[in-house]
Amino acid sequence: MTARTLRRTGVIPPVVTPLTADGEIDRPSLERVVDHLLDGGVSGLFALGSSGETAYLTHGQQDEVIKVITAAAAGQVPVLVGAIETTTNRAIERARVAAALGAEAVVVTAPFYTRTHDTEIDRHFRDVAAALDLPVLAYDVPVCVHSKLGPELLLELAADGVLAGVKDSSGDDGSFRRLALGARELPGFSVLTGHELVVDAMMLAGADGSVPGLGNVDPHGYVRLHEAAVRGDWATAKAEQDRLVDLFDIIRAVSPGTASATAAGLGAFKTALMLRGVITTNVMSPPMRRLDAAETARIAACLDRAGLARL
Amino acid sequence: MTARTLRRTGVIPPVVTPLTADGEIDRPSLERVVDHLLDGGVSGLFALGSSGETAYLTHGQQDEVIKVITAAAAGQVPVLVGAIETTTNRAIERARVAAALGAEAVVVTAPFYTRTHDTEIDRHFRDVAAALDLPVLAYDVPVCVHSKLGPELLLELAADGVLAGVKDSSGDDGSFRRLALGARELPGFSVLTGHELVVDAMMLAGADGSVPGLGNVDPHGYVRLHEAAVRGDWATAKAEQDRLVDLFDIIRAVSPGTASATAAGLGAFKTALMLRGVITTNVMSPPMRRLDAAETARIAACLDRAGLARL
Amino acid sequence: MTARTLRRTGVIPPVVTPLTADGEIDRPSLERVVDHLLDGGVSGLFALGSSGETAYLTHGQQDEVIKVITAAAAGQVPVLVGAIETTTNRAIERARVAAALGAEAVVVTAPFYTRTHDTEIDRHFRDVAAALDLPVLAYDVPVCVHSKLGPELLLELAADGVLAGVKDSSGDDGSFRRLALGARELPGFSVLTGHELVVDAMMLAGADGSVPGLGNVDPHGYVRLHEAAVRGDWATAKAEQDRLVDLFDIIRAVSPGTASATAAGLGAFKTALMLRGVITTNVMSPPMRRLDAAETARIAACLDRAGLARL
Amino acid sequence: MTARTLRRTGVIPPVVTPLTADGEIDRPSLERVVDHLLDGGVSGLFALGSSGETAYLTHGQQDEVIKVITAAAAGQVPVLVGAIETTTNRAIERARVAAALGAEAVVVTAPFYTRTHDTEIDRHFRDVAAALDLPVLAYDVPVCVHSKLGPELLLELAADGVLAGVKDSSGDDGSFRRLALGARELPGFSVLTGHELVVDAMMLAGADGSVPGLGNVDPHGYVRLHEAAVRGDWATAKAEQDRLVDLFDIIRAVSPGTASATAAGLGAFKTALMLRGVITTNVMSPPMRRLDAAETARIAACLDRAGLARL
Repeated sequence: MTARTLRRTGVIPPVVTPLTADGEIDRPSLERVVDHLLDGGVSGLFALGSSGETAYLTHGQQDEVIKVITAAAAGQVPVLVGAIETTTNRAIERARVAAALGAEAVVVTAPFYTRTHDTEIDRHFRDVAAALDLPVLAYDVPVCVHSKLGPELLLELAADGVLAGVKDSSGDDGSFRRLALGARELPGFSVLTGHELVVDAMMLAGADGSVPGLGNVDPHGYVRLHEAAVRGDWATAKAEQDRLVDLFDIIRAVSPGTASATAAGLGAFKTALMLRGVITTNVMSPPMRRLDAAETARIAACLDRAGLARL
Repeated sequence: MTARTLRRTGVIPPVVTPLTADGEIDRPSLERVVDHLLDGGVSGLFALGSSGETAYLTHGQQDEVIKVITAAAAGQVPVLVGAIETTTNRAIERARVAAALGAEAVVVTAPFYTRTHDTEIDRHFRDVAAALDLPVLAYDVPVCVHSKLGPELLLELAADGVLAGVKDSSGDDGSFRRLALGARELPGFSVLTGHELVVDAMMLAGADGSVPGLGNVDPHGYVRLHEAAVRGDWATAKAEQDRLVDLFDIIRAVSPGTASATAAGLGAFKTALMLRGVITTNVMSPPMRRLDAAETARIAACLDRAGLARL
Repeated sequence: MTARTLRRTGVIPPVVTPLTADGEIDRPSLERVVDHLLDGGVSGLFALGSSGETAYLTHGQQDEVIKVITAAAAGQVPVLVGAIETTTNRAIERARVAAALGAEAVVVTAPFYTRTHDTEIDRHFRDVAAALDLPVLAYDVPVCVHSKLGPELLLELAADGVLAGVKDSSGDDGSFRRLALGARELPGFSVLTGHELVVDAMMLAGADGSVPGLGNVDPHGYVRLHEAAVRGDWATAKAEQDRLVDLFDIIRAVSPGTASATAAGLGAFKTALMLRGVITTNVMSPPMRRLDAAETARIAACLDRAGLARL
Repeated sequence: MTARTLRRTGVIPPVVTPLTADGEIDRPSLERVVDHLLDGGVSGLFALGSSGETAYLTHGQQDEVIKVITAAAAGQVPVLVGAIETTTNRAIERARVAAALGAEAVVVTAPFYTRTHDTEIDRHFRDVAAALDLPVLAYDVPVCVHSKLGPELLLELAADGVLAGVKDSSGDDGSFRRLALGARELPGFSVLTGHELVVDAMMLAGADGSVPGLGNVDPHGYVRLHEAAVRGDWATAKAEQDRLVDLFDIIRAVSPGTASATAAGLGAFKTALMLRGVITTNVMSPPMRRLDAAETARIAACLDRAGLARL
């Protein structure tokens, strides 16, 4: 396996980005998130993913996040870093910064804002990879970028040594299955699911690991799920996943019609971490609002039902 | 009218960004584009819009574009500058740079990449405007950001002094009509259409002016169209528009199935400008490819049919 | 011009289908709707369009609607009839019934429910036309069928004598413009806009006439608009359209979050007609609900503002 | 359990509808399809689903299909019948016919063509169920009807005795998981997946059974998969599913850009059944074309690779 490939397994949560009351990066809280995740047994950290509010952070804030996470991880697990930018040159610029700050690999989406095409997506990943000395993972997230990375394209890029893996947040499990099947012959290519409600099912389908946003709240649960799946104990994996599906109800705590799905979901993760004593505030980046007291109470009830300790 | 409002009329093209063979900003070509547009009689310039490949340019390149355009415009017409970023803080950061470099106003979209909500879009524009000392125009471009700015929201933001105008590239002319009707009572609010194939119709519907991408290729035509509409000579306006619709066939010059709609459209604009002797190359930002010789020949034929001189 | 073509101009409203309290076709009310429209000066009637709740009516009810409308029209104006079915054989079957019951022409959409493709849409219209002895108009309504009829496809079908016209409810005015331009050389091909908020603009763009759902409520207004446009009096056309845009606010009378856009729009048309004394109830086909008293009061206020008499 | 409920498990394929060369229902071939499926060990048959070209068949043809399938099944397994119509009254009308012709249950989608709303979908299913004496299953198929049936709505309808089950073809496995979890407390409610590439995973997630279109081609494989899953032998289930995913490549046999996804998929199923000697032709309903010789050869290669006997 060359420096351009890596086969990552296990649970690699997309780390949330805690903020202070005035909207700055909350360094001590972020360090505690990393500790909390390491304590849960995760095998890697994904900084500056969608769950990390990457699209809400200035480049200066992003740099700070990378520094805090890599310092806190202290080499115990690798840190993957998102370089989520609209197009090729911008992604390369951010990926180089991430590399300089200690990323083991970078995670890149298809172009967005602009309309794109498979021929351009192909060139995009090739240009990004050619400009870098570290592994590149594709981030398949149609809900954000409004195009889907097909298994044929991904497998060809993998075979050509362009891509070292995929984080699949497409929700298209048929496509994921075909990707996982094709990847069996690509030893340096990681197939990771971001579909946090069916990690057991996607492990059965051939995933190497998972990148669950909800893993911020309950990393121990996702690690137990992963380990059960790896040893073929599907009944235990399923029971753990069912409990986590129930926990995921925290994203419905938000009062209907008052916030985006992003604000509802990430707000719930942050509020749960605040209730668990890991982070100090549940402040969100503008223009998102933080969850209020009534919404927080609903999340507390979910945590209790899932058996998760809180302050 | 305060410093926060402006009522802009006329033709304000979204200026294309010429590149050198190695992908850098082509300063002399960009200066010639500005001269070409001023010669056509445009009443303003919109830098770093979608047609300017803004999503493809690094912040450093964007700064250079603003500098060249404001210098070349030399105060003859105002320069509006796009601050097209995923969310609030990032847009503010770029808008401040634009202001410092001479923008008369900034143009801002709804949040993108992330999912959003009307309550968040509302706060987004309010936060952006509150952070700046210059007018803010909303850029309604669902094909890029995947949400639509409704007339009710826009008119409320206009009435509250948050927005100084709208560039409407939504293609939703019913919505545009309702916006234009509502704006009649808002003297400092500009309603500009980006729907370049029906500028005559949208002027009839109440637009103050237009922001046509195709105006890069034929500014004189769009200015004639605008002036005819303003004096109520709709037959002339329609005839001019019909000719420009025919000219717009240049975007179908690209070989089918080989490029995105963005690459086809912007590639055609650049190729036409190259054929007209205004810019030196038709190079596109990666991952887009430049149009090839066969495609260029088709564009030349369109120019000839439209009666546009070329080298 | 052969029997397969017709060049229709003027206002051809999509006739609403009044229902009795128990959900049956309300024949006397439907007859009064036809009288109301003829009194307004319409030049044709479109039965069983989307505004006629065609997708909600059994074939037996549809037959009854055709019979009532053709009898009430009594040859004063032609009756176009929708044959809105998922695919080819089903559309042919219904089109034959319409022909037998007196339709001058039938109106057919692209296939829906199933996924489709341009090659199949092409064959669909050719097969439908080949099976019938009367003109076929294409109904371009992506919001219902989820595919768009492109101008190239439509113009080719028109040139081949397959299509006698288009009712464009796509809201894509750039596409409509290109269609209207191309149709100038096709004397037997009617280009009709269903975009009821910009009929003035689309007439300027080259439409032959309009098919406005709101024309049920105020046929006189749309006829005045059409006539002004035809004589080139665009200021009058615009003023009339602006008044109608304001009247269109009736579709926002529905309480937010309680009904589909279809129920809100058609429910408003029916409620307005009830308030105007034309129809007896505002009952809707299941599963849509009728508008309630509070919603009805809002519609009454809109009618008053628009200067429309009511009981 | 009352007459309105049923808990169906196992494999219940959506039966394809073979046609003669001139497009009529091919009765002997359809009988052979039923025999083929029964031989494979299926536990039910779903007539007039999307895979049965239901949207392409006239009501007369649909009646014939029901008669042939119920006669051929001869009570060995239950026959579920689709009543796939745009809205409530039309679905009721067709469901009554299905009931009279021997359906054990009917399968109904959300309204389509028209825009709809959760309040209307709710009333739709309640009205349909109230008008019938047999169980009603919801068919969740957003790719066709363009709305998604949420788990909350479905579980409420199930708890109220309106729905006896769901056929989930939404591809939204997170939603399916939540549905399956909720259904554990509803003994008369069947949760069936139509997601044919991840049946093993969805069984792990809690499905009662599957409705795989590909099950027409290889019912034995899907029955083996189901039985392995039921006994907890997930390794065998996965291996069988992986083989079937590979077989599913038959849907990519169609020449690119020449047919809809529906025509590609159903055309492949029919062609495979023809190659396997089960049906006589691979004729498709208009406006779909049948697969040609080159495409057929590609499908034959897939069958060989999957170890399926053919003529």
